[in-house]
Order: sequence, then structure tokens, then C-alpha cells
Amino acid sequence: MMARNTDMRWRLPLVCLLWELAMIILFGVFVRFNAESDIAGWEKAKQEKNITSDAENDFYFRYPSFQDVHVMIFVGFGFLMTFLQRYGFGAVAFNFLLAAFGIQWALLVQGWFHTFENGKILIGVESMIGADFCVGSVCIAFGAVLGKISPVQLLIMTLFQVTLFSVNEYILLDLLHETLGNIALHTSGFRAARLVRPDWAPSLQRRCNNDKQRKVKDAGGSMTIHTFGAYFGLVVTAILYRPNLEQTKDKQGSVYHSDLFSMIGTLFLWMYWPSFNSAISDHGDAQHRAAINTYCSLAACVLTTVAFSSLLQKKGKLNMVHIQNATLAGGVAVGTAAEMMLTAYGSLIVGFICGIVSTVGFVYFTPFLESKLRIQDTCGIHNLHGMPGLIGGIVGAVTAAAATEGVYGKEGLIRAFDFTGDFSHRTPSVQGGFQAAGIAVSLGMALAGGPS
Amino acid sequence: MMARNTDMRWRLPLVCLLWELAMIILFGVFVRFNAESDIAGWEKAKQEKNITSDAENDFYFRYPSFQDVHVMIFVGFGFLMTFLQRYGFGAVAFNFLLAAFGIQWALLVQGWFHTFENGKILIGVESMIGADFCVGSVCIAFGAVLGKISPVQLLIMTLFQVTLFSVNEYILLDLLHETLGNIALHTSGFRAARLVRPDWAPSLQRRCNNDKQRKVKDAGGSMTIHTFGAYFGLVVTAILYRPNLEQTKDKQGSVYHSDLFSMIGTLFLWMYWPSFNSAISDHGDAQHRAAINTYCSLAACVLTTVAFSSLLQKKGKLNMVHIQNATLAGGVAVGTAAEMMLTAYGSLIVGFICGIVSTVGFVYFTPFLESKLRIQDTCGIHNLHGMPGLIGGIVGAVTAAAATEGVYGKEGLIRAFDFTGDFSHRTPSVQGGFQAAGIAVSLGMALAGGPS
Amino acid sequence: MMARNTDMRWRLPLVCLLWELAMIILFGVFVRFNAESDIAGWEKAKQEKNITSDAENDFYFRYPSFQDVHVMIFVGFGFLMTFLQRYGFGAVAFNFLLAAFGIQWALLVQGWFHTFENGKILIGVESMIGADFCVGSVCIAFGAVLGKISPVQLLIMTLFQVTLFSVNEYILLDLLHETLGNIALHTSGFRAARLVRPDWAPSLQRRCNNDKQRKVKDAGGSMTIHTFGAYFGLVVTAILYRPNLEQTKDKQGSVYHSDLFSMIGTLFLWMYWPSFNSAISDHGDAQHRAAINTYCSLAACVLTTVAFSSLLQKKGKLNMVHIQNATLAGGVAVGTAAEMMLTAYGSLIVGFICGIVSTVGFVYFTPFLESKLRIQDTCGIHNLHGMPGLIGGIVGAVTAAAATEGVYGKEGLIRAFDFTGDFSHRTPSVQGGFQAAGIAVSLGMALAGGPS
Repeated sequence: MMARNTDMRWRLPLVCLLWELAMIILFGVFVRFNAESDIAGWEKAKQEKNITSDAENDFYFRYPSFQDVHVMIFVGFGFLMTFLQRYGFGAVAFNFLLAAFGIQWALLVQGWFHTFENGKILIGVESMIGADFCVGSVCIAFGAVLGKISPVQLLIMTLFQVTLFSVNEYILLDLLHETLGNIALHTSGFRAARLVRPDWAPSLQRRCNNDKQRKVKDAGGSMTIHTFGAYFGLVVTAILYRPNLEQTKDKQGSVYHSDLFSMIGTLFLWMYWPSFNSAISDHGDAQHRAAINTYCSLAACVLTTVAFSSLLQKKGKLNMVHIQNATLAGGVAVGTAAEMMLTAYGSLIVGFICGIVSTVGFVYFTPFLESKLRIQDTCGIHNLHGMPGLIGGIVGAVTAAAATEGVYGKEGLIRAFDFTGDFSHRTPSVQGGFQAAGIAVSLGMALAGGPS
Repeated sequence: MMARNTDMRWRLPLVCLLWELAMIILFGVFVRFNAESDIAGWEKAKQEKNITSDAENDFYFRYPSFQDVHVMIFVGFGFLMTFLQRYGFGAVAFNFLLAAFGIQWALLVQGWFHTFENGKILIGVESMIGADFCVGSVCIAFGAVLGKISPVQLLIMTLFQVTLFSVNEYILLDLLHETLGNIALHTSGFRAARLVRPDWAPSLQRRCNNDKQRKVKDAGGSMTIHTFGAYFGLVVTAILYRPNLEQTKDKQGSVYHSDLFSMIGTLFLWMYWPSFNSAISDHGDAQHRAAINTYCSLAACVLTTVAFSSLLQKKGKLNMVHIQNATLAGGVAVGTAAEMMLTAYGSLIVGFICGIVSTVGFVYFTPFLESKLRIQDTCGIHNLHGMPGLIGGIVGAVTAAAATEGVYGKEGLIRAFDFTGDFSHRTPSVQGGFQAAGIAVSLGMALAGGPS
Repeated sequence: MMARNTDMRWRLPLVCLLWELAMIILFGVFVRFNAESDIAGWEKAKQEKNITSDAENDFYFRYPSFQDVHVMIFVGFGFLMTFLQRYGFGAVAFNFLLAAFGIQWALLVQGWFHTFENGKILIGVESMIGADFCVGSVCIAFGAVLGKISPVQLLIMTLFQVTLFSVNEYILLDLLHETLGNIALHTSGFRAARLVRPDWAPSLQRRCNNDKQRKVKDAGGSMTIHTFGAYFGLVVTAILYRPNLEQTKDKQGSVYHSDLFSMIGTLFLWMYWPSFNSAISDHGDAQHRAAINTYCSLAACVLTTVAFSSLLQKKGKLNMVHIQNATLAGGVAVGTAAEMMLTAYGSLIVGFICGIVSTVGFVYFTPFLESKLRIQDTCGIHNLHGMPGLIGGIVGAVTAAAATEGVYGKEGLIRAFDFTGDFSHRTPSVQGGFQAAGIAVSLGMALAGGPS
């Protein structure tokens, strides 16, 4: 498929087979079904929590969104990268390979961090969404190195990036202010439950973890997925700099049909982004709101992308690369704040700005990155994920800091930001500060992790 | 992208930016979350209505269908129009642009008509479906003028058509027989609720509006979406008649790969049409039934399309344009009646007829329209949406008029047609009459609105 | 479309029209809505079973999965077969035709076997999934004869195969050990219910049929769909052997864009397979678990496919046909066991093995079949559905036989395998035996049915 892959003869088969065997062993040792996917577990959970309907199983709240996210990872990211005439099939196939390995490894690493208890990782539908999210950040980074990395190198990058992603996510969502009393919550809050039914406490805790203990909010992954993935990829491509690389967009260009294939990727990403940003939000109004905010932001983004694409091109023609990419920036940038009370017009404003930033980035910033900083960003991920991801982090921090009891209601404020237990005295402005810290950590992890 | 768009240099960017700014201002003034997507609102709604499970949030009843509809609008209609070799990318990109603007404007206009109270538009998942539906009618009209309209003209057409669509929909669903006591219902029915909890009355009313007050039933939009969109588009294309237009199907034709791209559009429309027709039906059996009826009608339509396509072509070969378009007519034509007790065999009959009507239309009627009436119907929307939409309106009227207590049950009849309050004495045959009136109004609005 | 179809002039239109008329008549006589899609029926069901929420309607548990399955049948199988340069459009269009007819006939035949009572077939969302499943097996068989069968022959094959599929399914799921007391269950279990509310007994029984009486478990159809479909198709293609057929893969090959189209089919099959295997499982943990197991198996399968594709090709390059097909074998092979407690690592092992078996099959077995046994397997369905389907049957038998109360819990074991009523004394190892018998029956039916 790619001329350079002479090492594929032995190395690729060996890596695939040995790593898959390792997965089997690690899954055998660690991975079990959680209370909602285990036959005995669900039976018990229903009895103990007085659940009368199977409709209460988390599966039905999240599975449709999971499938949309799944399409985004495999068809969305895969086909988005087919615009390069020569690498169309390679882009789809290698994206397929990295994602298939990545989701397995992500189930393990994220499981160790989030749903590990009594020596077992407990998985359910939310684990699958989490694994797909994690792999999404690798797909983003892949966009920067497309065309100058072999499949084996890609698998190694996946192994490393998934691990670092999960560490970063753990820091943001669980650790960032452990000092404020997280330990107390951990050790006291669940003790009673554990005493009564020790076998299902892990699962109860998992639920509570999801519902109650997210320190930095980032349901759509503006920081953890997009900012992290983009800057990680940019660092990797900077290291792999090739002076004579001929597959830059200007020289290689796209052909008519490859642009239509790429548009399949764009549209599935654009259409399903509301599911992406709402997939792991709390049940009820939060998922509902996250979908609406994302829908609005994406719509606004299309108009400003078209405006600036036309404005900055000779003769006012639209540039297909902008339509294929910058129209998605609005989804990236509401990733953190979509589940908050960002409101529809707030979302429009974010989309409005990101369409402009992203399009301008393609026109001026990508050439600058390549000529001055020797960073070859094949797919322009800095414009689609890097800058919008940072904007998303900031929007999230501001929205959190601006939260008031008037808008959220007293209960709502507590529920939205988990101001419970030892966090009950926390204020929205402090939350905003933590959100801002989350941006810095994600950026730092990506820049530090890429080279190693 | 298109040679003619020399005006894009300034006009397109200006229109996009100014209109988007207008959207932000209008959304800021008017649009708020409804009770099911607002954090404080859902909290209150659960308490007041004794809702114990988040599964009762309207989001979970409609979001999967919304996503399917969303795919139909952006991938379905977008790719369906790629069969013209030269306008493939333009079709997808301009469809993307018009739909992204259209859904914002539709949220506003439909909001003012349907969910406006205390000076605010309250939006939720059903608003998003409604906006997508409204934009669907613009996508249909776009099919008639594909290749002879600039992006700016397209946006102007969208602005105007969305407005008129909403007026027409308002007349059909809310006004058509206001005289029969709608005012009384409005002023008395909700007074109590408003007195007790004035802040959430709007949302209660919205629910009731959806559940109870639809005067003409048209859940799948045979009349409001398809008939209206098609005839609106035909009027516009008649006005924009170009004697020397060379992109008619015969001269331009399609190439092999553009036919496969077009087939992607066809299939996603075909597969997701059951979601389209059931998306805003009442919860429970109505959504269930609408999906089944549409599934049956579409299946039958494929067989008669193939039969007549083969019959009317030289050498019995299939015509790809028929397969791409006429197979969908069955979905259009059960749009009104799908949620009623049309029954599976009734749906088969409708699909059977529409496959024939639509295919015959492509062979004989489209050339006639162009040569005699100077109406250039690029994509053949008269065959796919115009005639099947009219048939759908008639089927709906007949099905409603034929409703009996024996089939629907006493409660069912009331529930299906909202024979409550001052409508409690209405009979199915009167309902059938109003349905028929709805067809005439839709047709009239489209024919009158197109020229202006 | 195909040079050979000179008989299409009259035969194809006649067959399509007459058969569709027959469908209308048969649907008119037999098909009615079931209790959950009928307006009066759902009203009654809610009252009688104290159902307080429309969320309990089976529609909401299964419709999202149905839509995913629907995409697999029409886009998945349709586009998967577009890799042959010359038959791309034909593959999609004929797949469309056969599936549209097949689902109607399947609704009837499966209805007569499974939901027939008081002279009527009662249909609901599960009927639509069942019909799509049944048609899936025809799509599989179509893959073997692609390029050497006319549309009329294809429709005849569909008519026959759908019938035989349903007979086979009936034997496996309902009859296989009628001797053990099924009759008793039928005649006693529901008598009370029937006496109290005779009109809705059929629907109650249908629910019970689904929930309680499946003798051989095969929710994802490893045996009934894949094994049966593949061997049926192979027998048909052996009979239709053409010595000079020039459309074998080696001679015809694929071109760049047709490979990308084919990849659309592959990815939609791959992504939605978890929905396929969980679509008709029991509500709650079973659907949840089936999705997770399938997700894991498919991920593992990709890695071993890549490994062996690279290993067995000259220069270590990946073969696109393997990526397009063998990556799916993992989904086929957990079809039977996915809803059982196969566990995530068990699924990985199955996927690991099937990726290897399927890829090796493409390299060595398909040429052998053609040269020695004169079986031309155009799309390699023996490698994708035949062998993995058999493996899936065996995995199901072993998993069932290995079930213990320790893993499933006492209640869970009864619920998972329906050890109720007269089956209450059955053991997992006996269940394993019946599962094995199911494989033999499916294989026998396919091999015997193909020639006739």
C-alpha cells in the first residue's frame, strides 16, 4: 500500500499477533462485565435498587450515542483523510487498524484508572464510549503524520498515546484537586454500601464516579481528546520532519472523487457530533442539552467557514479543504461546555468564532507551521482540533465560572458540577479555575509526551 | 466551484456573516431551553409530574430518530444530487450550506409559531427534528434548481421558503379550524396550570400542543414537506428558466462513480425513512406503527419501480435514475397516514402505486414539463416529492375518514385524532375533510409563494 | 446493466408486479399490528400489565438496533460487493431489489411460523428485525453468485431461500426438542391468560415465545443466518458453474475507487455488528452483553487479519480484499454466543482465531474451491460467513455447555437458557448438545436446499 513499508514483511505480523495475544491474556486476567452487563449482576442490581424496568439499564441511555461515536471514529475520521489522492485507501485501512487495536488497549488502561476494584476492570457501554473517545485522539494525531509513518510505527504511537491520554484524563477528571477532600469521599462515602453488598460495590462506585466525582468537566473532550490529540500529533510530526516530503496539500492536491469520499467523512462527523458531546453526560437534561448546544454551534460554524473560505480565496471560490474541515470546529469547541447551560446563542457565538479561526488557520497558519517551524500538518489538525480545542477549554472554564444559582437552580448547580460532599462549599469561579488548569495540563502532557 | 459565481467574492461572505450575526442576536433575545433540556426545568418537571426516571425525558424517545433524520438531510439529500457528474461536490456542499443556515432560521420561525410563550422560544429535541424537517423541504426544492442558482440566491430562497413553510405548517396544524373552538381551548385549558406554576406553563403547553392540538395530521410531512417543497421548487425553477441550459439529464448524464455516490444518498434516505415518518408521532404505539407502515410501503415501491423502469426502457435495462429516486416515493406517500391505522397491506398498496407513478413520471412527465411548460426539473422532484406528496395527502385524508371505533377503539380514536375538548364531537369523516383542505392549502401556498 | 439480461424485457416486470400483488393480497389476509404497534392493543396492554410508561414499548428497546441492522443489509452488504469494477452498481441495485422483496416475504413466512394466532400474523419491531436477518442470509448467498445470475433468477432464489431459512429457524428455535415437553408448555402455560383476555393472548404468547421458548439459542444468527446462507449460496454457485467465467477476482480485480466504495460497506457492517448480535436478545443485560462481546471480537479480528494478510502476501503488502472481508469474521463467529457469558477475553479469542481462518481461507481455500470443486465463490463468502459461522455454532455450543450457576447465578441460568416449565430439569451440557445439533441441521438444510 505504501512504498516504504518494506518492514511490513515480518514486523507488522509479529506486532499484531503478539500484541493481540497480550490483549487476550490481560483481558482474561482483568476484564469482567459490570453490574449492568452481567447476568447475575443486573439481577441483583434490579432487586437492590428497586429497578422495575430494564429500560433503566445504562445501555438504553447510551447505546445509540455509542453507535454514532463509533461511526465517527471509523467512517468519520477514516474517510475525512481520504482527500489525498494517493493515500485514500491507506488512510481508511490504517485508521481501521489503529482504532481496532486502540480500543482494546484503551479498555484496559482506562479501566485500570476508572473502574478497577478488587483486581478486576468492570466494563459496560460507557467503557466502549470511553475507549472510542480515547482512540479518537489517536485518529486526530494520525491526521498530522498521514503519509510518513508505517503501520508498525502507527501501532507504537497508538500504544503510547492511549496510555498518556488515560493518564491525562485521570489527572483532569479524578485527581486535579484530590487535596480538596477526594480521599475523604472515597473512603467514607461508599463504606456502607461495601459492607452491605461487597461484591457489587465496585459497580455502584463506578456509577457514582460517573455521576458525582468528575473534577474537571469535559464530557465532549475539548481538552482531553482534541487539544491533547492535536498537540501530541503535532509534536510527533515535528520530530518526523521530512524536508522533501511531497505529499503536502499544495503539491498533491485532491481529485474530484476523493473530495466526495472525504465529504462522507466530514458529514458523518458533523451530523453525529451532537451524540459525541452528549454520549457520557448525565442522564436526562444534560444529554438533551449537550445535543442541542452542539447542533447549534455546528450550524453557525458552517456559515462562517463558507464566508471566510470565499473571502480568502482568489475569485471567491470555495476551498474544499475548508468545507471538509473547518465546518467541524464548532463541535470541537463546545466539547467541554455543551452539557452546561451554554445556551443556544452561546453555542452560536462559539461556532461563529471557530469557523473563522479554523479557516484562517488553514490559509495562513498551516503554511507558517511548515515553513517556519518545520511542522508538517498533513490534514491541518491544528486548525480543526488544536485551536478549537483550546477555545473549547476556555469556553468551558468561562461557562463554569459564570454559572449562577439563578440559571441552574440550587439543586442544578450541585448536580451540574458535583458540588457534593467535601466539594459542597466550592463555587463556580473556583470550578472555572480548575477547568483552566485542565487546559494547561492537557497541553503540557501532549507537548511533553509526544517526544518521548 | 461553479463558473457563474463571480458574485461570491463579496456577496457570499457578507450574507453569511451578517445573517449569522442576526441569528446570534435573535437566538440571544428569544431562544431558551425547554423544560426537558433545562437543568432547573427538568428538576422541577420531575418533581411536579412525579417522573421517577430520566428515561421519561423526551430526548430518549426521539433522539435516535432525530439522528436518522439528520443523516437524511445532509447525506441523503446531499448525495442523492451527486449523480450529475459536474455538480457532485457543489450539490453536497451547497446542500450543507443551505441546511446549516436553514435549521437555525427554522428553529426561530417554527419556535415563534409553536413554542413561543412569555416572549421566549423554548427548544428541545422535537424542535431540532422540526427544523430538520423544514430544511428538508428546501433541500427538495433545491433539487429542481440545481445547477442554475448561486449560493447567495440559494440562501435567499432558504430564508423565504423556511418562513413560508412554517406559516403553512402553522395553518395546517394549528389554525385550520380555529373557528371550531381552538381559542376556547387555548384560553381555558391551561389557565389552571398557569396559575399554579406560571414559569413552566409554556412547556406544559408545548407538550399539549404536540400531543393534543394538531388539527391536520401530517407527522411525516407528505403535505407540509414534500408537496409544499416540490411545488415551491418547481415554481422557482420555472421562473429561472434558461433556454440553453446544458445540464439536463439527457445531455449531461451521469458517470459510473457518480451513480454509486448518488446511491449512497438513495439508500440512507430509504433506510431511515421509517424514522422520518415516526420521529414526531406520539410516544408508544404511534411511533411503532409509523415505522412499520413506512417500512412496508418502501419495500413495495422498490419492486414496482424496477418493474416499470425495466418495462419502459429500451432492451429492458434498468435506468439508474429511477432506482435512485422512484424507490423512495413510497416513503413520501405514507408520510401523513403512517402513524394512523393504515395497516401493512394498505402501505403496500400505496408503495405499489407510487413506484409506478413516480417511474412513469420520470419517463413521460419530466420531458413534458421541460418542453411544454418550460419547467426544468433537474432532479425530477415532481416525480419523487410532488406527485407522491399529493397522493400521501389523499391517502391521509381517506385513512382518517375511514377510521372507525372498531379498529381504533374508543380511546384510540380520540387519542389518534385529538378529538378532545371542543373537538370531542368531531367525526373521522370531518377530519378527512380537513385533511383534504390541508392538501389544497399546501399546494396553494407553494404555488403562490414561489414567485414572490 | 448486465449484458445477459435479455429476459428482463418482460420477465422481470411481470415477476415484480405479480409477486408484489401477491404480497398485497397475502398481507391483506394475514398481517395485522401486534399489541405494541396497534392503537387499541397498546392501550389494553398498558392497562392489563400495569405499564405506566410508553418507554416500555418494545419499539424503544429495539428500534435503534433495527436501524443499524437495516443499514447493514442495504448499505453494508450492497457496498461490500462493489469491489468488482464492473458490477458495482449492479451489486448495490440487485441487492436492493432482493432485499426489498425478501423482507416482505420473510414477514409472511416467519410470521406464519412464529407469531401466527387466530389466523393472523402479528407484526412489530422484532418482526422487522427478523425479516432483515432472514434477508441477510440471502445477501450472503448472493455474494457467491454475483455476476452470473439474472435479477429474475435472484428473485426466485430469494423466494426459495427465505422460505427454507424460516423452516430451518423454526426447527432450531422452536422444534428441535419438542419431544421434551414443548407441547405441554404450549397447551398449559398460556391457557389461563387466554381465558382472561382471549383477544390479546396471541401477543402475550409472542412475547413469551421470544422470551422463553427458544430451544437453540442463536440471537446473532451464526448458524441460522451465516452458516445457512453461505452454504446455500455455495451450493447454488456450484450448480451454476461457468467454466469460462471471467469475473473471478484475479482477472477482474478492483480499481482504486471501487475499493473505497467497498470499504464503506465493510465499515458499516463492522461498526453496526454489535447491534446485529444484540438486536433480538432479551432486554437489559443480555443486549448490553451481546454488544460488548461483539465489539471485542471484531477488534481482535482486525489485528489477526492484518497480520496474516501481510504475512501471506508478496512483499508484505496488505491485500484489500482481506481487509474488506476477513475483518468481519469475528462478528459472525460470536453470533450465537454473544448474549451468553462469553466474556470479553473469550470474544477476543474467537476474533483472534477467525481473522486467521478467514484470511487463510481467502489465500488458499477459495482457489482450491474453484479449481478442484468447481465452486466459484465470487465474494469469498465461505471465508467470511461459512467457516466463521460454523466456528460460531461451535463456540455457542461450548459456551452453553460450560455455563455454571457460579457464573450465571441460579436465576440467571434459567433466564439465559429458558430452563423453565418442562425444561426446568435441563442442564447446560444438554443445552450444548442441542446447540451442536443446530449446527448440523443448518448445514444440512443449506446443502439439501440449494439444489432443489
